[in-house]
Amino acid sequence: MSVSIRVCLVGAGRAGKVHANSLVYHVPAASVAGIVDAYPEALQDTGDQFGVDARFDSLEAALDGIEFDAVVITTPTFTHRSLAVLAAEVGKHVFLEKPMALTIAECDEIMGAAQRSGVLLQIGFMRRFAPEFVAAFERIQAGEIGRPMMIKSLSHGPGLPPPWALDLKKSNGLLAEVNSHDWDCTRWLMGSNPQRVYAEVANFKGEARGVTTSNFYDNALVNIRFENGGLGSISGVCPCDYGYDSRVEIVGELGIMQIGEMQGQAVVVCTDREQGLVTPIFRTWPERFAWGYIREMQHFIGCIQTDTPPSVGGEDGRWAVAGALAGTRSFFEERPVYLSEILDEGWTPS
Amino acid sequence: MSVSIRVCLVGAGRAGKVHANSLVYHVPAASVAGIVDAYPEALQDTGDQFGVDARFDSLEAALDGIEFDAVVITTPTFTHRSLAVLAAEVGKHVFLEKPMALTIAECDEIMGAAQRSGVLLQIGFMRRFAPEFVAAFERIQAGEIGRPMMIKSLSHGPGLPPPWALDLKKSNGLLAEVNSHDWDCTRWLMGSNPQRVYAEVANFKGEARGVTTSNFYDNALVNIRFENGGLGSISGVCPCDYGYDSRVEIVGELGIMQIGEMQGQAVVVCTDREQGLVTPIFRTWPERFAWGYIREMQHFIGCIQTDTPPSVGGEDGRWAVAGALAGTRSFFEERPVYLSEILDEGWTPS
Amino acid sequence: MSVSIRVCLVGAGRAGKVHANSLVYHVPAASVAGIVDAYPEALQDTGDQFGVDARFDSLEAALDGIEFDAVVITTPTFTHRSLAVLAAEVGKHVFLEKPMALTIAECDEIMGAAQRSGVLLQIGFMRRFAPEFVAAFERIQAGEIGRPMMIKSLSHGPGLPPPWALDLKKSNGLLAEVNSHDWDCTRWLMGSNPQRVYAEVANFKGEARGVTTSNFYDNALVNIRFENGGLGSISGVCPCDYGYDSRVEIVGELGIMQIGEMQGQAVVVCTDREQGLVTPIFRTWPERFAWGYIREMQHFIGCIQTDTPPSVGGEDGRWAVAGALAGTRSFFEERPVYLSEILDEGWTPS
Amino acid sequence: MSVSIRVCLVGAGRAGKVHANSLVYHVPAASVAGIVDAYPEALQDTGDQFGVDARFDSLEAALDGIEFDAVVITTPTFTHRSLAVLAAEVGKHVFLEKPMALTIAECDEIMGAAQRSGVLLQIGFMRRFAPEFVAAFERIQAGEIGRPMMIKSLSHGPGLPPPWALDLKKSNGLLAEVNSHDWDCTRWLMGSNPQRVYAEVANFKGEARGVTTSNFYDNALVNIRFENGGLGSISGVCPCDYGYDSRVEIVGELGIMQIGEMQGQAVVVCTDREQGLVTPIFRTWPERFAWGYIREMQHFIGCIQTDTPPSVGGEDGRWAVAGALAGTRSFFEERPVYLSEILDEGWTPS
Repeated sequence: MSVSIRVCLVGAGRAGKVHANSLVYHVPAASVAGIVDAYPEALQDTGDQFGVDARFDSLEAALDGIEFDAVVITTPTFTHRSLAVLAAEVGKHVFLEKPMALTIAECDEIMGAAQRSGVLLQIGFMRRFAPEFVAAFERIQAGEIGRPMMIKSLSHGPGLPPPWALDLKKSNGLLAEVNSHDWDCTRWLMGSNPQRVYAEVANFKGEARGVTTSNFYDNALVNIRFENGGLGSISGVCPCDYGYDSRVEIVGELGIMQIGEMQGQAVVVCTDREQGLVTPIFRTWPERFAWGYIREMQHFIGCIQTDTPPSVGGEDGRWAVAGALAGTRSFFEERPVYLSEILDEGWTPS
Repeated sequence: MSVSIRVCLVGAGRAGKVHANSLVYHVPAASVAGIVDAYPEALQDTGDQFGVDARFDSLEAALDGIEFDAVVITTPTFTHRSLAVLAAEVGKHVFLEKPMALTIAECDEIMGAAQRSGVLLQIGFMRRFAPEFVAAFERIQAGEIGRPMMIKSLSHGPGLPPPWALDLKKSNGLLAEVNSHDWDCTRWLMGSNPQRVYAEVANFKGEARGVTTSNFYDNALVNIRFENGGLGSISGVCPCDYGYDSRVEIVGELGIMQIGEMQGQAVVVCTDREQGLVTPIFRTWPERFAWGYIREMQHFIGCIQTDTPPSVGGEDGRWAVAGALAGTRSFFEERPVYLSEILDEGWTPS
Repeated sequence: MSVSIRVCLVGAGRAGKVHANSLVYHVPAASVAGIVDAYPEALQDTGDQFGVDARFDSLEAALDGIEFDAVVITTPTFTHRSLAVLAAEVGKHVFLEKPMALTIAECDEIMGAAQRSGVLLQIGFMRRFAPEFVAAFERIQAGEIGRPMMIKSLSHGPGLPPPWALDLKKSNGLLAEVNSHDWDCTRWLMGSNPQRVYAEVANFKGEARGVTTSNFYDNALVNIRFENGGLGSISGVCPCDYGYDSRVEIVGELGIMQIGEMQGQAVVVCTDREQGLVTPIFRTWPERFAWGYIREMQHFIGCIQTDTPPSVGGEDGRWAVAGALAGTRSFFEERPVYLSEILDEGWTPS
Repeated sequence: MSVSIRVCLVGAGRAGKVHANSLVYHVPAASVAGIVDAYPEALQDTGDQFGVDARFDSLEAALDGIEFDAVVITTPTFTHRSLAVLAAEVGKHVFLEKPMALTIAECDEIMGAAQRSGVLLQIGFMRRFAPEFVAAFERIQAGEIGRPMMIKSLSHGPGLPPPWALDLKKSNGLLAEVNSHDWDCTRWLMGSNPQRVYAEVANFKGEARGVTTSNFYDNALVNIRFENGGLGSISGVCPCDYGYDSRVEIVGELGIMQIGEMQGQAVVVCTDREQGLVTPIFRTWPERFAWGYIREMQHFIGCIQTDTPPSVGGEDGRWAVAGALAGTRSFFEERPVYLSEILDEGWTPS
């Protein structure tokens, strides 16, 4: 286990804590060298919780103050490009949370910087490391359900996103913030890139929760045609309030496969026969993907130690950004949108 | 479908209504010729509900008043012997609810009367006709899980039994009233008779519900050794309040099989992430065994039409009575009791 | 139960048998007076199975030969209009299987004929009578999950449809033959009419199964926007081979509700730890909707007895036809299609 | 996190590897200082896998060769007393796998040694740390299902135990080797000590697998009466072949609670409608209790760091040994056996 990989956390919020937990308790080959956050409270809270004393209000300050090998970036999407490019340019390996960036151009900048510096770039698609998703992928690859014909993936998140994520211009909205994982895992499991998409969105709860951003929506339903002729559906609801819900269903030529379930902890109780059986639901994404988060970080550190490209890189992040943009353009223009329109034309919802 | 089989319902309570419903709505080959009950209110209620005008306060009166081919007896256990013997002796086919009778001697009397008169005798073990039990039995017979090694069967009923059933002397208690089905189905699915049993019982709720019968218990747990060397467990809880719960689990040399489940109607709801997923439980036994009740009555009528012995007869009822008595003697005497002690000695809990 | 309602079955195929079974065994107030089918073998088979001697090769012949009160029409879609109109015009109540007809104009003809003759018209949407759907509807109405925001409904059927149903011109294809139930139940449960739809379809298995019909597809995925702002998804796969799969999921402002499940009979077996637990799937639609089929026929007969309009009538059938046509036009023209375009313009896929 | 707690693994077999994995990858406050095993192959295998170079063929040799703070003992039961006493006497904290020891006298020796030396003693009842068991315990304590009336706990293990464990004299057999967890968790969750037990056992597979030990059995079913009047059932099957199965069901005065389930990874597949849905089962105990094993070791190390008595100590281990002995005596003597007979008389199956 020799030399520890020193990681600087950039972003001390909720996702930052999840990764800190993995690094501190479950990835013995790594250590948290420092934490960066512009918000003093988040910095103090996360620093105290994980016993990290080196705290900075900017990545630049961290680069001046401490030595480290890699960054784990969990800040808002609109900051990803500048932080990731900076880190890559000074030779730090980059773990970047989804969505990778706001535009295809930004994705290209990040990938270019990483390539030029020869650093590794991993995108935070933890589903790719969740044991049931890994097993499902392998079983599909082995032909168990035959050629996939139709895939459906949903992500419903319990609470209202942070203020910046309510604005499409800063976040690309729910289709990116919440559904990035669906864009990625449908493409991964289908084994094909999306070709065109059609999206419908709706805003049911915004007004009651004081969301005044004009382009806000809290429900999205996307139809996908893949390059290989397969069909796909992505749905997002946030806030859904009832729990964290992430499930995938695939129909292949030989059968059906379901990945994930709503029920969490295996404790079933019935105390009222008018009501019936009650089982815990997954309440939060860290709970739902506990092992996925641990294993993606083990993978990232392992890749650094062995100088191997991560299995989920910039290209994957870029496709998810393209999907979110194509979906957004679709409901803006009320028509199916080809991914090529996004990849070639650089459309953004501004 | 030619000539209808005319049935006289003896007992107009809850079980009587269940069978009336089957006969009137789901067994076109049969008709309800009359109803007998000593309680005028039950008589009126059930008669009105099913449009049966011929109503009597005794089986004797019905025999005088109307023509019919068969009886369906659902009265309290302590009345079974006299009613079944009377019906058989005058040439009526007998469908008799569980428990068959209070003692082995009574069972023998009933079987003897039926045999002498050449009438059919079917015991109300509806699990034998419930589709999932039928399929399970056939799959065990086909060797799917190998030779059964261990079987567990539970019956938990929601509410306090009627007053007469609280007294062991009139009912043999929970081990007979509720667990008759378990005595029968463990023997049926194990493919062997019980050899010896050990029972523990407890009384948790009696006092709070005003049960003053000295020998009342509301929890029972029985260990069984079968003649073929297999092991068994029967448990009963009544009142359990939380629903009607009836499940069986069998471990064979090649694997495990579970029959039945707690969740009823396939509607899952989550509206509170602190609480989780809510699914209806089976609330009552008529709901849980809806098809079992229909099919056992179709079987009975079909047997009459074709003059074929029912697949569940007096011998099966007698073994269940023996089991309940052996279990009762076991907790009375705090020792394992052999079934032979019951079958040979005529022990009763008096 | 007085006078029996005499029913003439028009169509002696699989659906005809399902309804014959309900009428003969579970609806004592009705009787099957005769059977009509152009195929002598089907006629003989179904007639023999249900003991019906009056058999005809056309509805006209049946009208000449026997007395009856109502028809149950289960013939191919392209025959619905003429049969239903004929039956209605001679004063017979009409139970008509889905899809109601091929075009909006045909639907209007049928409804007009029924109205003019004062006969009842019920469409075969058995989900409306399936106990779990009924309970779900009532719980949604009671506000349990709040205002529905998004609804998803799928129907996957195991086998290749009959030859005529492979041709859109004779059947409107999978979106009508299989997904009629989804068009109806999403509209019913959402409490709103569809406003516009976008459909993608694919043909994965046709060639290997010798389907040469040019417009055949075996996978369909539809996005719906409802008039009330809610979103919907319908998917169809046929042949899916793996079983009969029919499930609905609704997200409301207050929570989520799932209706139906894949597992059928409650028998779980494990005999191989590399494979895991095995549970029966619903194999066929008569098995999946056993009670739905019984109860819709009880409803139809009950409506006739009490001269009450059925709860599922021509208007409901017409909306499902409109949905299937809008979906078809959408994938023909690769754009979202408004229902008004179908209802107003009379588009057909010819 | 300051100073690391140095652990010497005593036993390099399967359980040893499970704890090594926890210590190396998930308990950053600890380190594996050395490994002890009499079998060179196990020593090399485990040492290589976890990168531990200090390897010894006896605890004595390890004490001579390296410095450490605690032992984790996973050797066969008949070695527990001497190893645990030795470790305790030289001041090492002791984590001791179940069963604690062979006799009550041995348990007392171990507890005495730990007490005299002032070292901590934790028994390996990982269910107490499995998240769903912890949640269940807390919910029972909070009164959610009322006073527990009946508890059932089963442990079915897939494969034939190691040779020494086939002999009751060296292991106390299945009731100890496999059911130790059930003895502990029923007592824990019921909140009461067992008062008397009755056990039936059977030997179905021994002969076919070449087990010639005269007292071997592979099925056990135990009835328990608890001091508080509650009832209990423990069942064990080993080898069951079909998977690793560990479930608990508790009926309280207010309702029922189920802990654990058979299905493992949430991937459901159906490719054959005659077979149905297939879901992975938990194949092994390390897979089933992945978090329980991690958290019990975090607890042990945390207790050492803070000098706090572990929540699961010698007294708990001793009760489980007493239960296994009482169950064994019961089937030897074919009668219910009081725990007091074991605790007072020192009975052993020799």
